Amino acid sequence: MLEYAEPVTKLIDEFKRLPGIGSKSAQRLAFHIMRLPEADVERLIDALQEVKRKIRLCSECNNLTDVDPCRFCSSPTRDRSIICVVEEPYNLVAIEKTRSYRGLYHVLHGSLSPVRGIGPEMLRLDNLLARLKPENNQGVKVKEVILATNPTTEGEATAIYLSHLLKPLGVRTTRIAMGMPVGSDLEYVDEVTMDKALANRHEI
Amino acid sequence: MLEYAEPVTKLIDEFKRLPGIGSKSAQRLAFHIMRLPEADVERLIDALQEVKRKIRLCSECNNLTDVDPCRFCSSPTRDRSIICVVEEPYNLVAIEKTRSYRGLYHVLHGSLSPVRGIGPEMLRLDNLLARLKPENNQGVKVKEVILATNPTTEGEATAIYLSHLLKPLGVRTTRIAMGMPVGSDLEYVDEVTMDKALANRHEI
Repeated sequence: MLEYAEPVTKLIDEFKRLPGIGSKSAQRLAFHIMRLPEADVERLIDALQEVKRKIRLCSECNNLTDVDPCRFCSSPTRDRSIICVVEEPYNLVAIEKTRSYRGLYHVLHGSLSPVRGIGPEMLRLDNLLARLKPENNQGVKVKEVILATNPTTEGEATAIYLSHLLKPLGVRTTRIAMGMPVGSDLEYVDEVTMDKALANRHEI
Repeated sequence: MLEYAEPVTKLIDEFKRLPGIGSKSAQRLAFHIMRLPEADVERLIDALQEVKRKIRLCSECNNLTDVDPCRFCSSPTRDRSIICVVEEPYNLVAIEKTRSYRGLYHVLHGSLSPVRGIGPEMLRLDNLLARLKPENNQGVKVKEVILATNPTTEGEATAIYLSHLLKPLGVRTTRIAMGMPVGSDLEYVDEVTMDKALANRHEI
């Protein structure tokens, strides 16, 4: 006997397609939805529709935005001479939270991965190169590009590729530091991080 | 500066209201939605709407269903003389998966919890008592009610309450066994389970 009615199975299947949601969670979510007041489900549906209707990529930095250019690219208080390159739109939040970065961003929407067949042509690089020309950057010359791709094989490969691409154009290219996370313990750190922490040691 | 555009924040907030979804997952889900093709999001929305439109409680057993009575209650092959009482609709799946139970179900939609202020009047008991009368059960007399509420304080309290309610009505009332899970190891079992396993020991 089919355990669930067909609309229930369908909803569970849809939830299962979402990232990080397995069979059990999908089931729990579907049962939760069935118990929610109609108005709450309507609100969820509205939010889904609104995001699809209003959100696009910023034509300058590829960040997800409801206005083009995005709030960063159009802000008069951000320093247009520094661009921080990240892999994904949500990576930007980690940097904004420090409240110490005042430059602009550039979102690649991915990282190089020969294993998964992702080459440079699949990253959003065209408008990054365009922005280096002052005439495309409100007359401001970009002085530095910070490569803040993830400290993974893919992120590292992407950073190296970008540095080879950018340096010949005369722009200073930097990479975020890798080392011991603040508040961590030497006892538990992995050897690759420890190695980076040693190699990147500096005078105090 | 606001990190996300407003429609994004709204969708993240809606995801956060769902059970088992924290800030990070909600964020990841929202970004996933923004990247999905329009058609995929439409399918999710359809599934949400369909479930709200079509799914109701079975008037006999309170299971979630798109037909009333549900597939269990209307099945000619199920044994109408046994009713298995569970707390939630998804608890029923665990029992169906054994393929050994051929009786009917009754879903309480909760369990007794003085701490959370949930008394017997908040459980769906009326139609359980009604079903014990043959005239409400296609002329079949219910011989046994299996109490399959969870092996938790609440589930146990609910089972005890129900047994006090049902026994005077002359119906055999049983409780599912508690003990060591199959495939587990004595080294890791908690003392309450071990205690139950000892107390429920039987001749072999």
